[in-house]
Amino acid sequence: MAYGLARRELKPKVPLRPGEGEKDHLTSLEGLAALSLDALSSVAYGPEAIVLALVVAGTGALTATLPVTLAITCLLAALVVSYAQVIAVHPDGGGAYAVAKKDLGGTTASLLAAASLVVDYVLTVAVSLAAGADALASAFPALAHDKLLVCLAGLALLTAVNLRGVTESARVLMLPTVLFIVAIVGVIVVGLFRAHPAAVVGTAQPAPAHEALGLLLILKAFSSGCSALTGVEAIANAVPTFRTPRVRRAQRTEFMLGALLGLMLVGLAVLIRRDQVAPRANVTILAQLTAGAYGDGWAYYATNLMVTLVLLLAANTSFGGLPVLMSLLARDHRLPHLFALRAERPVYRYGVVALALLAAALLIATDANTHRLIPLFAIGVFIGFTISQLGLVRHWATQKPDGWKHRAVINGTGAVLTTLAGLVLLLTKFLAGAWVVVIAVPLMMLLFARIQRYYTEVGKELELGRVPAPPDRCTTSLVIVPLGEVSKLARHAIGAALALGDEVVAVAVQADPDKSRTLREAWDRWDPGVRLDIIDSPHRSLVQPIVNYVQRAAQDGRRIAVLIPEVEPKHRRYEILQNQRGLLLATVLRARTDVVVCMLPYRLRL
Amino acid sequence: MAYGLARRELKPKVPLRPGEGEKDHLTSLEGLAALSLDALSSVAYGPEAIVLALVVAGTGALTATLPVTLAITCLLAALVVSYAQVIAVHPDGGGAYAVAKKDLGGTTASLLAAASLVVDYVLTVAVSLAAGADALASAFPALAHDKLLVCLAGLALLTAVNLRGVTESARVLMLPTVLFIVAIVGVIVVGLFRAHPAAVVGTAQPAPAHEALGLLLILKAFSSGCSALTGVEAIANAVPTFRTPRVRRAQRTEFMLGALLGLMLVGLAVLIRRDQVAPRANVTILAQLTAGAYGDGWAYYATNLMVTLVLLLAANTSFGGLPVLMSLLARDHRLPHLFALRAERPVYRYGVVALALLAAALLIATDANTHRLIPLFAIGVFIGFTISQLGLVRHWATQKPDGWKHRAVINGTGAVLTTLAGLVLLLTKFLAGAWVVVIAVPLMMLLFARIQRYYTEVGKELELGRVPAPPDRCTTSLVIVPLGEVSKLARHAIGAALALGDEVVAVAVQADPDKSRTLREAWDRWDPGVRLDIIDSPHRSLVQPIVNYVQRAAQDGRRIAVLIPEVEPKHRRYEILQNQRGLLLATVLRARTDVVVCMLPYRLRL
Repeated sequence: MAYGLARRELKPKVPLRPGEGEKDHLTSLEGLAALSLDALSSVAYGPEAIVLALVVAGTGALTATLPVTLAITCLLAALVVSYAQVIAVHPDGGGAYAVAKKDLGGTTASLLAAASLVVDYVLTVAVSLAAGADALASAFPALAHDKLLVCLAGLALLTAVNLRGVTESARVLMLPTVLFIVAIVGVIVVGLFRAHPAAVVGTAQPAPAHEALGLLLILKAFSSGCSALTGVEAIANAVPTFRTPRVRRAQRTEFMLGALLGLMLVGLAVLIRRDQVAPRANVTILAQLTAGAYGDGWAYYATNLMVTLVLLLAANTSFGGLPVLMSLLARDHRLPHLFALRAERPVYRYGVVALALLAAALLIATDANTHRLIPLFAIGVFIGFTISQLGLVRHWATQKPDGWKHRAVINGTGAVLTTLAGLVLLLTKFLAGAWVVVIAVPLMMLLFARIQRYYTEVGKELELGRVPAPPDRCTTSLVIVPLGEVSKLARHAIGAALALGDEVVAVAVQADPDKSRTLREAWDRWDPGVRLDIIDSPHRSLVQPIVNYVQRAAQDGRRIAVLIPEVEPKHRRYEILQNQRGLLLATVLRARTDVVVCMLPYRLRL
Repeated sequence: MAYGLARRELKPKVPLRPGEGEKDHLTSLEGLAALSLDALSSVAYGPEAIVLALVVAGTGALTATLPVTLAITCLLAALVVSYAQVIAVHPDGGGAYAVAKKDLGGTTASLLAAASLVVDYVLTVAVSLAAGADALASAFPALAHDKLLVCLAGLALLTAVNLRGVTESARVLMLPTVLFIVAIVGVIVVGLFRAHPAAVVGTAQPAPAHEALGLLLILKAFSSGCSALTGVEAIANAVPTFRTPRVRRAQRTEFMLGALLGLMLVGLAVLIRRDQVAPRANVTILAQLTAGAYGDGWAYYATNLMVTLVLLLAANTSFGGLPVLMSLLARDHRLPHLFALRAERPVYRYGVVALALLAAALLIATDANTHRLIPLFAIGVFIGFTISQLGLVRHWATQKPDGWKHRAVINGTGAVLTTLAGLVLLLTKFLAGAWVVVIAVPLMMLLFARIQRYYTEVGKELELGRVPAPPDRCTTSLVIVPLGEVSKLARHAIGAALALGDEVVAVAVQADPDKSRTLREAWDRWDPGVRLDIIDSPHRSLVQPIVNYVQRAAQDGRRIAVLIPEVEPKHRRYEILQNQRGLLLATVLRARTDVVVCMLPYRLRL
């Protein structure tokens, strides 16, 4: 199931096979509702990022918002056409990591794709939560000073839900997405019909011009605004969730998403220009436009809450994506294998926790400030965009189907544009935070490579792939049973040891000579046919004498096992009353000796 | 070593046996220096507690400080005489818990003693740290608002030191104790020689009279001041650390301690009366007296720092005592056995942590306010006093040695006085916090009793003390080895399994049919003479299929062991890259099945 790679993975309730349960698959419109959430929600911060970049040249410079937005929309169009081809070539879905592994061959490209995807996932969570807190604070200004807390609470909620495991159906996302689209398109349409804004919210801020409106500033605004393009790859990653004909439907959805997102961005930019919207304290640009269209009554609150909810859901898509990506990296030996481990629930617990910790660190470091996060955000996405396009160019160049040159030109153009946009982003935002990504991505690649090297070395040491020598059949075994007293537990343990070992010996540690004598007498009365060695331990130490005993016994070349009987209470609340000694002994034996350490449960009725 | 019970246990560097290493034992004067620290340090908060109790009737009422102190000194005299007899009867040492178990027979008395000792130990830590923070803040007023932080930092330091394990020699305590005695006696002598206080520190506070100076107020002041008596039992608990003749020396030390403490209390009270010392903001009463005698120069700072250090050391005595008491309770099956567990170091780790947590909770709940802690403090001590005396009365009445009536009267008087003082304390301080103790002590007794009942039940179920049936000798064994691939690890595991089991079977879980086939082919090429079962797991779950397999195998009555091979990297930093899967499987198997779970290490060179 290659679409497990998907940046925004969707999990159908039942794993579907081709042709099966076709009704559970998505039509084009359903796909749009289910898969566009991440891309569309970026209108909550994209236009705002442009305005904030331009305003350093004074409010007059805000007239440049519309042309910058149009340039971004052109890039969007190129991306959409490019991704329509990605869909045709990778009908099984395929994120940048899969494409890089498959088409670009080299290790470096796939490591780069993986590292940039990790950055991207983490930043999607951080930016979406921060923008969601902004939207919430626009409705409830009392929260303006606690945005970090709001973000961390949202993050805790997402983490808890995802640790429990969500059987997230694509359809659950439809209603909020549709309501969001209706609300934002409504803002544009109603806003354009009004001669003047219906209401003004927030507090006016002075905006003195620090810089002249030059090319550099325009480029900065462009690169900030590109954050609005994140998420357009989601549909290409989820082709298998569409109803047949999958490719046609997915392509249609991609075009609809592009049209809708472009429309929204341009519409909002026109409104910003007409109403001369400038940044105001405590409210977002989108909230100002909402108030301008709907007034500051219930519709204002409802729209802001809807934006908050959609941003929270956008953050949640990363929780569907990153843990899966990490599990794939773990299977490729590029992350610790534990990230591929699903315990009892179908949840990659370690991946979820890792994502939550990274996002929390980022939010705390930037004080949940959207505008400090944006410069870090888009770079990872653009790396992914570029890799996908380059992979396709290579695909066309090697497969050479009909019209491959034409197609290669389309994807090549896409690759060039996204590379250029990425470079612009990097150069204009380097000091504003992009340097973090410039450092983090190579470090992560190095980490992945080192982990892979470690696993390769281990594989060599274990002689994976070679036929091992036949197993040793001649060793005899000695089972050592540490005991405290003569009881049914001792009987249980000795019985198990006799079934396992060629020879069995019981061992007890005693500090008190009187108790040693009592134990010896009880043992002799019982007479189980097994030797009991009593070790004198005047310092009351329990573990070390047994370790020494075991190490001495291990010297004669026999296979040694230590069988530790454990009393297991029936009720959980009694667990603290039992077992600690055995566990401690087991831990120390495993750390210090090479013997087999066996735990034998004895279940109480209590 | 019954003196392990000691409230303030001293650990000689080498465990001493009678007659051995007599030079390492203490003379009377050395004993005074080493064992009086806890008792003497209470002059830092005892007199202050009296003053604070009286001042609610206006500063005029402070003239009652001297008579109240004299009454407390009388009680002190009675206690000292009583404890001299305790020393004679229990030359092996013996805290209230040991005496209650030995002489009072009943379970209730020893449970009461144990619970009140726990309360007492925890409060010693909390009160000493809080009073230490007060003393430090008297020297450095900038700390006045961060007393809780200062206390928690001190607590963290003590916890860390005690977790590492201190080979605390009694002699280490001598120098600070001697310096402390010199400083405080100096304050009294120099202060009395001066006609007027040398300096006045702190800020004056209005002290309007809320109440009339009646009997109730006097009783309240008396009961608060009794906190100065805590610690006088320490010498009786540590008789074995004295040089022969132990009893004579210990008794002499007890009398010296009583004389010194009484002298200090009365001396300070006289100074308080003469200089009309009233509570002032940011400084303690003792700090005011210090400034009055030495001025506010370097001697003032040095004395306050000395008081702080001695109080920190007094708090540390509880870290020597409570974990030992808890280990004894655990050996009596009245606390979870893990409290009797000493891992690698001779430290009762769980007891130290429990004490730290309880003291931290108390400090946080009272905001490290000494005067909110005092009402809780003395009750536990008085219960211990009373139990020791009653035990002795009973001892005289049953043993009937020469002059037993005379002796019984002395201890009886002590018991009556401490009971009365305890009752006064309880009645006058009930609402001020004593209710916490009134609730906590019975709850703890109940907890101890319930734990004991649990262990008794378990003992019955395990048929402790009876001769068990002979162990089962007829079972054959099946060892199941979960494997992922054919490698040296597999060879190692199969070899160990063959040594242990009558029959061995390997089992692998595979999600991918291709990989299943590859594994099967590799196995057949290797041909180790052991069957391999491959379980198909389309949902990629790893643990549950093995658990099901094991449960099915367990149905035919054979003894089942699951042998889990574990790759152990040489370097710690690689540990996160290994082992998680095996540990997870082991945990789930131990929770859900009754099979023997064996861990086999395979040490890497890496």
